[in-house]
Amino acid sequence: MAVSEVNSGPGTDGSDGGTGTRAGTDEGTGTRAGADGGTGTDLHLDLPSTGSRRAALLHALRSAVRSGRLAPGTLLPPYRALAADLGIARNTVAEAYAELVAEGWLVARQGSGTRVAERTVPASPVRVPKRSPAREASARKPAARARGPRFDLRQGQPDPASFPRTAWVASVRRAVNAAPHEAFGPAAPQGRIELRTALAEYLARARGVRTSPERIVICAGFAHALRLLFGGAGGSGAGVLRGPLAVEEYGLAFHRALLGAAAVRTVPLPLDEQGARTGELGSERAVLLSPAHQFPTGGPLHAERRAAAVDWARARGGLVLEDDYDGEFRYDRRPVGAVQGLDPERVVYLGSVSKSLSPALRLGWMVLPDHLVDDVLRVKGEREAWTGVTDQLALADFLECGSYDRHVRRMRLRYRRRRDRLVRALTERAPHIPVTGVAAGLHAVLRLPPGTEPSTLKAARWQGLALDGLADFRHPEARGPLREGLVVGYATPPEHAYPAAVDALCAALPPNGS
Amino acid sequence: MAVSEVNSGPGTDGSDGGTGTRAGTDEGTGTRAGADGGTGTDLHLDLPSTGSRRAALLHALRSAVRSGRLAPGTLLPPYRALAADLGIARNTVAEAYAELVAEGWLVARQGSGTRVAERTVPASPVRVPKRSPAREASARKPAARARGPRFDLRQGQPDPASFPRTAWVASVRRAVNAAPHEAFGPAAPQGRIELRTALAEYLARARGVRTSPERIVICAGFAHALRLLFGGAGGSGAGVLRGPLAVEEYGLAFHRALLGAAAVRTVPLPLDEQGARTGELGSERAVLLSPAHQFPTGGPLHAERRAAAVDWARARGGLVLEDDYDGEFRYDRRPVGAVQGLDPERVVYLGSVSKSLSPALRLGWMVLPDHLVDDVLRVKGEREAWTGVTDQLALADFLECGSYDRHVRRMRLRYRRRRDRLVRALTERAPHIPVTGVAAGLHAVLRLPPGTEPSTLKAARWQGLALDGLADFRHPEARGPLREGLVVGYATPPEHAYPAAVDALCAALPPNGS
Repeated sequence: MAVSEVNSGPGTDGSDGGTGTRAGTDEGTGTRAGADGGTGTDLHLDLPSTGSRRAALLHALRSAVRSGRLAPGTLLPPYRALAADLGIARNTVAEAYAELVAEGWLVARQGSGTRVAERTVPASPVRVPKRSPAREASARKPAARARGPRFDLRQGQPDPASFPRTAWVASVRRAVNAAPHEAFGPAAPQGRIELRTALAEYLARARGVRTSPERIVICAGFAHALRLLFGGAGGSGAGVLRGPLAVEEYGLAFHRALLGAAAVRTVPLPLDEQGARTGELGSERAVLLSPAHQFPTGGPLHAERRAAAVDWARARGGLVLEDDYDGEFRYDRRPVGAVQGLDPERVVYLGSVSKSLSPALRLGWMVLPDHLVDDVLRVKGEREAWTGVTDQLALADFLECGSYDRHVRRMRLRYRRRRDRLVRALTERAPHIPVTGVAAGLHAVLRLPPGTEPSTLKAARWQGLALDGLADFRHPEARGPLREGLVVGYATPPEHAYPAAVDALCAALPPNGS
Repeated sequence: MAVSEVNSGPGTDGSDGGTGTRAGTDEGTGTRAGADGGTGTDLHLDLPSTGSRRAALLHALRSAVRSGRLAPGTLLPPYRALAADLGIARNTVAEAYAELVAEGWLVARQGSGTRVAERTVPASPVRVPKRSPAREASARKPAARARGPRFDLRQGQPDPASFPRTAWVASVRRAVNAAPHEAFGPAAPQGRIELRTALAEYLARARGVRTSPERIVICAGFAHALRLLFGGAGGSGAGVLRGPLAVEEYGLAFHRALLGAAAVRTVPLPLDEQGARTGELGSERAVLLSPAHQFPTGGPLHAERRAAAVDWARARGGLVLEDDYDGEFRYDRRPVGAVQGLDPERVVYLGSVSKSLSPALRLGWMVLPDHLVDDVLRVKGEREAWTGVTDQLALADFLECGSYDRHVRRMRLRYRRRRDRLVRALTERAPHIPVTGVAAGLHAVLRLPPGTEPSTLKAARWQGLALDGLADFRHPEARGPLREGLVVGYATPPEHAYPAAVDALCAALPPNGS
């Protein structure tokens, strides 16, 4: 056998052809293997290939500390391990460590190894960039929260303090320990079978969805699902469906922007008291609806409108995209099942844990008509490139052991109490402001007198509130009557701050007769 | 206050205006709240709004079981909870359960609740689709593994059986329990500060990278990083950089396809014994290199070539993209530090846990020049839409508590033993076949005599081996000399199967003099 290894580390000349021999003998002697397989840490140092090893090592270590590359407190590898890594004598490294301790660069403590000393010189020579607002916001906190508002009443967010940490960790532990080895190899794009099986059972039982695990595709949330369907993510860049897409005339601007970026034209569908007027669907290719709880105005889609949407899809070969973003949270009214149950071949059902558990998990699912499964998988790519395996396995366990149901019921109770407090306060202090959309979900809509939305939003900001007005959600081409109002998310503020947040909201509302 | 709630569940007429009253009084009585907040499961049933409640419930439950929507074994909610959900009398539900048990639809066991009976009728009315090859493959196993080969020697995959489950779960537990509440709210696109801080320290220490946490952006792996840089993912669809992009003339076809989909022209850069000929860089905007271990041919980039790449970037305003895909795994030679350390303003450093821990975690990072950070964040979107928070926090803990170093050292030892066994076997049985690229990484390249690669691959398939030939990696416009060979990943086969895999490989090689 001939081994022709190119073996040039930095500063060497590439002429080292001895790799084969060393490879063949290393295991026999076992010395490097022993040092290499220990419990030390890895340390990268560039040493010149000629001259005194000791001087070179001292220079390299001093430079790394002085430049800040090795931060104060960094634990260095044991001298034996570093000597093995660098291929130099152990004594040389031990002496260098001792000298640098004497010089104050390093600190050695019995039993806790050798560390970089704490110093007063700047830790990093890399220019810390001027903090832009975007980067400032992303450093520690979610975007708009870093700058000022005392209370976050923006819609669409569950209470981050209620994430079921203990139960989730227990599910991670069970799921990771029970997983087959292949779970940690390259993953298939459809998502783990364990999760798809658990979801098929749960969605059938709790949401009236009719499906089998073979028709579910796991994704990183609703936005990812839209990208897979209409383009903008996945291997090919192109999506599975084309526009024009009918959308409710009030909805998330972010979704419209996402569709616009994929060159999909959106056509606004008027809303009335019974929800989207699906009887007016025409030549669009698909319609995106939030039937359980219209977002953001808050009503469920009337049974006749649900049927009309499915009839339209059957007659025209169209598709209904069902955004079931908060279907679990209903308070006073009977559960509203998924439209998907009416015709699994004509409805794409989309859900996620973003409202029920946390938007930070990035876990969602698509329940697809049979004829779309292969297309979506093709767009998603040969391998799973997005959703991590541990969260997928953990959610499967979380669903199967009943933790998901328990969490949803506990949160439903908590959110309903918050909703009730909000409604009571408004009844007392602003009886002229109608409240809608409160039978379900995590937000209410406070209808405002014509012309008062901008000034009320200004007053709300003045009161330290972060929230949105209905105008932000209106499709730019909407022809239905203008609605003015506040969209008030009541799930997010910490429990102790909620009464004050409601007070501040009441104080921001326009007086009667304005 | 006026409450104008649209309250039409399926089958109701939308005229129920009493929500406000109920909202106001529910908390006072507490009955529904108590039932709702219990530990039951959720069950969705559609009941008509008129007629006998009991008959309607019986019909709805029978239909749900008969249709397969409620699978055999499914646990039903306690009758109290279902009664509260449906707004009907408890006795009615209890009687309906009893009747369905008597009819054999349900089974009740003391202490374990009421479940759907096991039956012999088909469980799902939803047509289980014909299994396409793509869907078959994705059902349980990674793509090509489901169909036949006895041994997987494809490159680029770590040993899935060695995923450090116990240590990882311990890190998840510590990290999730220690996280602030805001960690479970909407996430900023740059990634958790805990992880960026831990990575900045680790990459400086182990890989010679010079950075600060502010310049690191977390992503879902190398492919996601390419998409963020060149387009194809994130909010805007457009990337940060433009082509043409110089690439090594041997590399992953998947990466070239990804760049092609983003309309980025790739220009092949010739390779020789010292690695990519960076001195020949011209008017390209950027160059993508794998300096620690050229992929797939296996050598490190010579020091002069490293310097030449950085000099070119400085002189032309270009960028070096450094793919450090397996820099942790080096065996015989001294560590090769990151090119990024030469000039953090001209090098984008890209890494992930896909080789060191598992490709199924979907966790990677970009270390960016200062001037690119805001652009990449803008492309990634206002909020994190991809990488889950628990894995980010867990990896931060895993790095900080030393588990990452321990795991890498353990795997380095294991992979080196596999590498040595491969080299020994080839020395004995195929001394005419040169082995290259074995000083580091998870794969070796076996150089083959001219004209023998296709027939050797055929023989390898005949031996039950899954592996790739060098031709698969060659850029279609490459002008350098054709190389023929096998790319042999030695990390993936289970420990017990590895000797047999090596035997099969030796048996597939062309005889001396062919």
